[in-house]
Amino acid sequence: MKNKEALSLKMKDGILSLIDQQKLPREELWLEVRQPEDMIMMIQELKVRGAPAIGVAASMALGLWVEQGMSFEDTTRWAHRYREARPTAVNLMNCIDRLLNVPQNEDWRSEFVRTVESIFDEDVQLCEGMSTQGASLIQSGQKVLTHCNTGGLATVGAGTALGVLRKAHEQNKQIHVFVDETRPLLQGGRLTTWECEKLKIPYTLICDNMAASLMQSGEVDHVFVGADRIALNGDFANKIGTYSLAVLCQYHRIPFTVVAPYTTIDINCSSGSEIPIEQRSSEEVKGVFGAFAQLQWAPESSQVWNPAFDVTPADLVTHWVFEDAVYRKEDIAEGVLNHKT
Amino acid sequence: MKNKEALSLKMKDGILSLIDQQKLPREELWLEVRQPEDMIMMIQELKVRGAPAIGVAASMALGLWVEQGMSFEDTTRWAHRYREARPTAVNLMNCIDRLLNVPQNEDWRSEFVRTVESIFDEDVQLCEGMSTQGASLIQSGQKVLTHCNTGGLATVGAGTALGVLRKAHEQNKQIHVFVDETRPLLQGGRLTTWECEKLKIPYTLICDNMAASLMQSGEVDHVFVGADRIALNGDFANKIGTYSLAVLCQYHRIPFTVVAPYTTIDINCSSGSEIPIEQRSSEEVKGVFGAFAQLQWAPESSQVWNPAFDVTPADLVTHWVFEDAVYRKEDIAEGVLNHKT
Repeated sequence: MKNKEALSLKMKDGILSLIDQQKLPREELWLEVRQPEDMIMMIQELKVRGAPAIGVAASMALGLWVEQGMSFEDTTRWAHRYREARPTAVNLMNCIDRLLNVPQNEDWRSEFVRTVESIFDEDVQLCEGMSTQGASLIQSGQKVLTHCNTGGLATVGAGTALGVLRKAHEQNKQIHVFVDETRPLLQGGRLTTWECEKLKIPYTLICDNMAASLMQSGEVDHVFVGADRIALNGDFANKIGTYSLAVLCQYHRIPFTVVAPYTTIDINCSSGSEIPIEQRSSEEVKGVFGAFAQLQWAPESSQVWNPAFDVTPADLVTHWVFEDAVYRKEDIAEGVLNHKT
Repeated sequence: MKNKEALSLKMKDGILSLIDQQKLPREELWLEVRQPEDMIMMIQELKVRGAPAIGVAASMALGLWVEQGMSFEDTTRWAHRYREARPTAVNLMNCIDRLLNVPQNEDWRSEFVRTVESIFDEDVQLCEGMSTQGASLIQSGQKVLTHCNTGGLATVGAGTALGVLRKAHEQNKQIHVFVDETRPLLQGGRLTTWECEKLKIPYTLICDNMAASLMQSGEVDHVFVGADRIALNGDFANKIGTYSLAVLCQYHRIPFTVVAPYTTIDINCSSGSEIPIEQRSSEEVKGVFGAFAQLQWAPESSQVWNPAFDVTPADLVTHWVFEDAVYRKEDIAEGVLNHKT
């Protein structure tokens, strides 16, 4: 496989490594993916995260095993196991399905690896497309709020929602980014802050429950978020807390924009109610629980509700930004998403 | 001074002690208030917190100094310093003003101490009144959500909002309480959970950004919160995140109720825009920062916005519960709060 490099992932001379996103920003530790099992562990423990990045990483791992001589049957079996490593993000499933479609003939290995390389390259191009489309919605001087991490760590390109903000910043629009810390796993507080520092984008970190007050004081002009799965009617699943922001935006008459590549659309979901929501460990809510830190402050016996995602209905969304277009409610209502996948 | 005992505070044989609320729930550490300066430190470091509890604790400390022979002038000076220890909660100011009104005559010491005792006893009675008034709004089987800590730790009685839930539980209504963890200082995750465990009230802990999704799924019948200051038009300041819940309740058509004693009303504030909002240290948002834990996960150079409170406008409130009455918007609009103080 050709060498490839991204902020969170690199393939170099046949070695696949991922930056441990659980350790960021305190430590920039690269982990080598040596065994097929490693990839599942890394996805489930969120060492690699972000819907597009998970799909590309799993694809590259499969490409590596194929290059190393894994049989077609074993590759198919591992592909299915990777496909089920996390239940909500659909990009992973879309990437794997594309690889599972490579026909078993004498050229299948080279075709498989070429497909993996295409998946990587396309993600970079998709990010560039989304960033350009989305940045057209931002005027200079605007203050924007974002949730979770949707940048170079969550993709292998510039990102989805954060890619848009990066593009606006590179266009010399004087933006200021408010970063939701995004409990319980703090992807905003740990990862988006780290990316903003690297990109020299001015930002202010807030706790999730401060966004409403910030909007009330007129400090937020636009909210941009990513998506883990988009249903055909425009409803979408994203990191827990996204739906809350969408409701707050409607009340404060602030545009609310979701940014995602076409690989995030699930043609098997007609509406958001069909998207399965992953429930995670109570340890994450009883304190902070990850490789970056482990600390508990709630009583050990606390019962906890910990959905990783929530679903935002289309009627709360102002714009859907894809790599090639910006859609509004009327476009979505006309069924434009049926023709994108 | 007579012996007095509450969940967070006790006066025993002339010794005033406070439970260190920064260490809860991991450690139940009682701190003795030995010097006038101690009280200011304990208020500012949130070892004592909760608008009513702060007012009573500062009053009891002054009563102790008076009993120990502090001059009228020094008492007045310390009273003014205590009054300014935290800027948002008005109960503290109301309690101190009441003590400052004790006239300087030969009986002033005994009169001062009697007033302090009355302030304590009244808080207990106010809690009982609020709890009974508020519990009338709860039907058996309902699921209620609360924010921050407004129970026995935040008052010297049963509490304000949490006092209402306790009363409903004691009335054998089968309630379930959802507890917002309440970033950044985690009063929900640390203190309300601890109180619910002690009271055997069934509860589920959530992160603040999950409340909207919980409401969307129909799991919340009513939201109860406390208040740090209520303006005459019914607007009120409370722990950051309260305003967010109020907006979410309106969108989901869920009753939103504020519970507070009359001492929380500020007759000098005609509306919420006049309430000063305390900004706190960036360390609290860059990680967890308190006696219960210190851990940083955001980059050291992160800029942070950290208001301790937000202001909820009266038009988002369904009920105002006081010790002697439940008011609705029409009562507030008629100016009923003008006559309560």
